Amino acid sequence: MPVTVVGSIAFDAVTTPLGSRDHMLGGSAVHFALAASFFDTVHVVGPVGDDFGQEEYDVLAARAVRTDDIERVAGQTFFWRGEYGWDLNERRTLDTQLGVFADFVPKLSEESAAADLLFLANIQPDLQRAVRERCRRARFVALDSMNYWIENARDSLIETIGVVDCVMLNDSELRELTGEPNLVRAARQIREWGPRLVVAKQGQYGAAMISQDGFFALPAFPLETVVDPTGAGDCFAGGFIGYLAAHSGAEADQDLFARAMAYGTAMASFNVEEFGVERLTHLTGDEIAHRVAELQRITQFSDRPVALRT
Amino acid sequence: MPVTVVGSIAFDAVTTPLGSRDHMLGGSAVHFALAASFFDTVHVVGPVGDDFGQEEYDVLAARAVRTDDIERVAGQTFFWRGEYGWDLNERRTLDTQLGVFADFVPKLSEESAAADLLFLANIQPDLQRAVRERCRRARFVALDSMNYWIENARDSLIETIGVVDCVMLNDSELRELTGEPNLVRAARQIREWGPRLVVAKQGQYGAAMISQDGFFALPAFPLETVVDPTGAGDCFAGGFIGYLAAHSGAEADQDLFARAMAYGTAMASFNVEEFGVERLTHLTGDEIAHRVAELQRITQFSDRPVALRT
Repeated sequence: MPVTVVGSIAFDAVTTPLGSRDHMLGGSAVHFALAASFFDTVHVVGPVGDDFGQEEYDVLAARAVRTDDIERVAGQTFFWRGEYGWDLNERRTLDTQLGVFADFVPKLSEESAAADLLFLANIQPDLQRAVRERCRRARFVALDSMNYWIENARDSLIETIGVVDCVMLNDSELRELTGEPNLVRAARQIREWGPRLVVAKQGQYGAAMISQDGFFALPAFPLETVVDPTGAGDCFAGGFIGYLAAHSGAEADQDLFARAMAYGTAMASFNVEEFGVERLTHLTGDEIAHRVAELQRITQFSDRPVALRT
Repeated sequence: MPVTVVGSIAFDAVTTPLGSRDHMLGGSAVHFALAASFFDTVHVVGPVGDDFGQEEYDVLAARAVRTDDIERVAGQTFFWRGEYGWDLNERRTLDTQLGVFADFVPKLSEESAAADLLFLANIQPDLQRAVRERCRRARFVALDSMNYWIENARDSLIETIGVVDCVMLNDSELRELTGEPNLVRAARQIREWGPRLVVAKQGQYGAAMISQDGFFALPAFPLETVVDPTGAGDCFAGGFIGYLAAHSGAEADQDLFARAMAYGTAMASFNVEEFGVERLTHLTGDEIAHRVAELQRITQFSDRPVALRT
């Protein structure tokens, strides 16, 4: 079933301990769309400026991403420059130029609005809510956000959370949003606001999920070389929601979500192997299947009874 | 098969967001021994002062921990006072009084020295090495350490690492010791020094293990209420090594170690449910078995083929 993503389309300049790129395709909607494109049809909704050229469209087209709702506006495409510290966990923003993203109001074609699955990447929560209301047929809607909106638009964000099925935030954002350091309690608070599913993204440690059916967690896929963590969370979301899209007939139970977590984890792990979206442009389905199988192998244990001394 | 642990025996004063204790039994050897006591016979080697009374011996005796090699010395038992911040991840040491621990030189009886499994809790690395050499029959030796020894006795620590089978350190300690932020690379460096197994303790995120047979990881068991994280790492080690001790006949392969990770994870999760070692004093074998089964449930996923679009 088709998926629609609304979010940023960007040019990124990134420096990590292993190198740098000065001007590469990025943005949450782009990372998400390329990851989800391995599973189903994806419509991208977001603004670009005059500097967004055929080369960038071609990257998306090569993965059959539907770009009809990419809106061209006079001005500059959203630009972000950042650098990562030696352990890749500290990220420093050096420059942000919103450009055409500053006045972005999502406009969805009938086709984008008719998608069955919707990912509201990190944009202003009022806009997220408007998009969610426009997509009346959406059966599964997930939302991301960031500390800026938690601090400056908390009420609107909570209202938007009330109309989605799934919240996907970083651990620290979940804590900040709920004022609750304990993940289980933070997730319960969010579920009381509406969503049935809470996914905590934990960076190098993986991801955890909490629903009414309980808890599930997976470590990040172990990599010897992480080149650029940018976009890992959006690729996780793309793998997760893409997997759901490809299993539209299946019941959306804890087992399905657990497998979606595995595919999200796999997509995030590929993305960080190269700069920006470079790895996704030459990734194969076989590689994804192999990595999920490997992820299963390194997380599964058989229990054998042991005589315990009470 | 019997297990011997050498480490600190202490009185702790701990303040967490959920309360405080002013003077309770603690120390790495005590946490380890109580956790491992559910699996097999455990000998504790460590020093105590005049203030260590029958009440404390009784806690260990109630779990059949062998206390013959607890050495009584004139003076004060090691005392530590600390407090945890709101999210329990920041720990602040307010007071450390080494007392009789300052001049501790481990003395092992024939029986302790004959143990098949040995845990060298966090003490000076020269002493760890001397104990390891005394325990000639030990078939599996694991070592813990801390940033203080990494910074002040690095060469000795690496020499000691060279004569053990398993290194169990916190994520950040592995990074600091090897100068390598990437866990996979850090573990390889340590394995080049000798050990066949590296376990990275990751606090609220769980634990990962790297051997020649690859990687394995488990999340921490999700708890709604964490009362006191003190000793969680030592209880993890106690569950891990205790499980190995109870399976002495089994081949020490990746599957066995993976199950040991699960039991370590379970023991750590119980320990943090109450202050100090309080939870372990009324824990049952059934509760442990149930928690491991639950841990399996919340980490295992079945893979189903999905048609991926390359």
